[in-house]
Amino acid sequence: MSTKVVKSIREAIGLSGLKDGMTVSFHHHLRNGDHVLNIVMAEIAGLGIRDLTVNASSLFDIHQPLADHIRNGVVTAIQTDYMAAGLGKAISRGLMEKPVQFRTHGGRPSDIASGNTPIDVAFIAAPSADPMGNCSGKYGKSACGSLGYAIPDAMYARHVVVITDNLVPYPLLDWSIPEIYVDAVVSVDAIGDPAGIVSGTTRITRDPVGLVMASYAARVIEHSGLLADGFSFQTGAGGASLAAAGFLKDIMLAKGVQGSFGLGGITGYMVDMLQAGCFQSLLDVQCFDLKAVESIRSDPRHQEISALHYASPTQRSAVVDSLDVVILGATEIDTDFNVNVHTDSNGYIMGGSGGHSDTAAGAKLAMIIAPMFRARLPIVTDRVTCISTPGRDIDVLVTQGGIAVNPKNGELCRRLRDAGLPVIDIHDLKAKAESMTGTPRRLTKGDRPVAQVIGRDGGLLDTIYNVPEA
Amino acid sequence: MSTKVVKSIREAIGLSGLKDGMTVSFHHHLRNGDHVLNIVMAEIAGLGIRDLTVNASSLFDIHQPLADHIRNGVVTAIQTDYMAAGLGKAISRGLMEKPVQFRTHGGRPSDIASGNTPIDVAFIAAPSADPMGNCSGKYGKSACGSLGYAIPDAMYARHVVVITDNLVPYPLLDWSIPEIYVDAVVSVDAIGDPAGIVSGTTRITRDPVGLVMASYAARVIEHSGLLADGFSFQTGAGGASLAAAGFLKDIMLAKGVQGSFGLGGITGYMVDMLQAGCFQSLLDVQCFDLKAVESIRSDPRHQEISALHYASPTQRSAVVDSLDVVILGATEIDTDFNVNVHTDSNGYIMGGSGGHSDTAAGAKLAMIIAPMFRARLPIVTDRVTCISTPGRDIDVLVTQGGIAVNPKNGELCRRLRDAGLPVIDIHDLKAKAESMTGTPRRLTKGDRPVAQVIGRDGGLLDTIYNVPEA
Repeated sequence: MSTKVVKSIREAIGLSGLKDGMTVSFHHHLRNGDHVLNIVMAEIAGLGIRDLTVNASSLFDIHQPLADHIRNGVVTAIQTDYMAAGLGKAISRGLMEKPVQFRTHGGRPSDIASGNTPIDVAFIAAPSADPMGNCSGKYGKSACGSLGYAIPDAMYARHVVVITDNLVPYPLLDWSIPEIYVDAVVSVDAIGDPAGIVSGTTRITRDPVGLVMASYAARVIEHSGLLADGFSFQTGAGGASLAAAGFLKDIMLAKGVQGSFGLGGITGYMVDMLQAGCFQSLLDVQCFDLKAVESIRSDPRHQEISALHYASPTQRSAVVDSLDVVILGATEIDTDFNVNVHTDSNGYIMGGSGGHSDTAAGAKLAMIIAPMFRARLPIVTDRVTCISTPGRDIDVLVTQGGIAVNPKNGELCRRLRDAGLPVIDIHDLKAKAESMTGTPRRLTKGDRPVAQVIGRDGGLLDTIYNVPEA
Repeated sequence: MSTKVVKSIREAIGLSGLKDGMTVSFHHHLRNGDHVLNIVMAEIAGLGIRDLTVNASSLFDIHQPLADHIRNGVVTAIQTDYMAAGLGKAISRGLMEKPVQFRTHGGRPSDIASGNTPIDVAFIAAPSADPMGNCSGKYGKSACGSLGYAIPDAMYARHVVVITDNLVPYPLLDWSIPEIYVDAVVSVDAIGDPAGIVSGTTRITRDPVGLVMASYAARVIEHSGLLADGFSFQTGAGGASLAAAGFLKDIMLAKGVQGSFGLGGITGYMVDMLQAGCFQSLLDVQCFDLKAVESIRSDPRHQEISALHYASPTQRSAVVDSLDVVILGATEIDTDFNVNVHTDSNGYIMGGSGGHSDTAAGAKLAMIIAPMFRARLPIVTDRVTCISTPGRDIDVLVTQGGIAVNPKNGELCRRLRDAGLPVIDIHDLKAKAESMTGTPRRLTKGDRPVAQVIGRDGGLLDTIYNVPEA
């Protein structure tokens, strides 16, 4: 029987030809439950390999051990689409020599496919795999559903190692990644902690402010002119966004609107909308909760898509190009509608674009939903600390204190006013928030670049500087 | 709403930038019912574009109009894996200046992926497609099931045109080819004739000689040592091969053997074996009949695979590498077990390797099933007219007059003798046939190469010469 199974991750690393100065890649479908990045990096460190670039679709707090690998010179560069606050704070304090390169969920696979960011060895955490490397995220004790972000890594890396805790007989069916791309398979006890694979962010808000925003958001969509048969929709996994989806579902059912597809990052709330008939399909690059995992496994209307198919700006097209409405978050938004999702208001890295810029660029209506202020800091500023998504791609900001429409959208503004929604100029919204909180003091930036924000078109969008010790 | 739909094939050709000297590609899932190659080539000819290379996964008799395009200088080179007798005879008579390049179903996608045979414009006949180019073979009035051979063309061609007679709203689900590879979509009245899409070859034999061979073939497999749980199998669509599958099914059910997968070119007979529990899955690069089409559409155990996944020798692996047994045909086989499936005994082109060489190289047991003679010409010769598959990859020849085992397989020979099967030395088999038919006269070859047979490893395996007028 043919097999690519090797005994250990260490043996797989040895066979991969990994050497100092190369690039390794990881995907983030196991989210804050992922064990694979840490196990692999520990083995690499143990083998004395140094000066590596880590290209990871996202980095979560569980990946905190990377900080030690950076201190020890094992890792000297990071390319990612998202970095959680733990590692983000260390980076912002100046942990790394080379600035982190942030890309988007569409820009990352685009640069991988084009060869701009070649990967030497991709490590694929696979909830199920067969001995030849056909693998899937849908089955097994560590099931995470879609493996969409891992697909470009597998297609284009020089060497591909699949790591699984559920080795099944050949052939595994319904593969996310076919054997044609896989060099080696390693069986381990656990690729992750199921409790961490499902994020805590996928719960609907009960906060009254969040519910007001959500209600406004749903009504903006209702009156946008886009809510008709064929409607397509993406929303994030934040509590207010999910509440907005809930209100939107009620409106769609009441009006009998038959949408075409829900996109994303899929939560159980989107599955509810599918099952209720709001959409004919879900296109899923990542599952956020167990209900989404169960749905993608069992419902043929719920389909896995690769990150290339989701959002790449350099393929012939991607699903984001056909998207009607996306609801997105922000830590800051400025009066030019530029959005920051990379840093908090103190300048510390605690996020990243993910699919933010991609969906904003593709969607006919890109909506930011955010409270007027967080921890007494207004959301609207003169200038965001970091431009994650350019204002030209943002159509409207929904807060509990009013709805600010990008001046480029005269028609939308008129529609919302006609519907009696509380439209407000973004400068007035800023003033309104500051009248309650006072004008925040300007952030003191350091002078050392710690991260570059690369737009989905490949250009430098912004630079993030270190935060000096207080 | 985003769309890639253009008004006509002519407009799509114009937008593709197709110019003199370029390469266009086609796939053959619509078999002898395909209209697309002829429609497209007529438009190209009408536009005055000349000196093209046609890279087609197979060419059937319906593609006879190609002969005129060759005569008129529109087409000056052909790359294909199979050519039916009509066009084959014209080529053998010396129609083309440049020799036809024959590849295998695995070698073709390998050379496309590597850039050895770049495609400028791929034309994909798609039984269903959406306006962004997501397309499938499973649905629509011209449903053909798998689009496996078209997938590499779509992935690697500089420009991709999808031609459909069933344009559906976005997003088409369960795509064979995703929109990320597609530049333009054209809607036409009919991409093919459903009656021709299902070939007449997929009927079980009733011929007594065929049934004897089929029975031997099944018993060879039974006693090969390979028929155990996990068993995997491919068979062609010829009558005797299908009858062998029928006998094999009975043996597997009687013995309770639970196989892993059936591969190929899938017929209703393989679907029967799946449904009877002989296999856990079918991996399908092409559907031969409506029962297979219905199965791939509705049974999740029946999965589409790309030609790369099926048989490419240069991917990290392909399914043929995990195959236990394949049953194949031959027009001739020589005493070194070299097999000819490209020409008839008169030297006229009337076929091609298809997946013959690929599965023979991959399978643990590659079996040729053929009658001792056809039209009073013995099958076994001193030297085949054309080497399609090298003898080193063939394990056993089954005829009604005995079973010849390749001498490299001592163990198999012993097993078959022990089972009481009529094992015969291939030289004795040849003599036995000739004692009935007389020694055939040697073929008179012409001196002009009309085709090159390129092995799956990319090397020149044989050259086919013209057949002089009698």
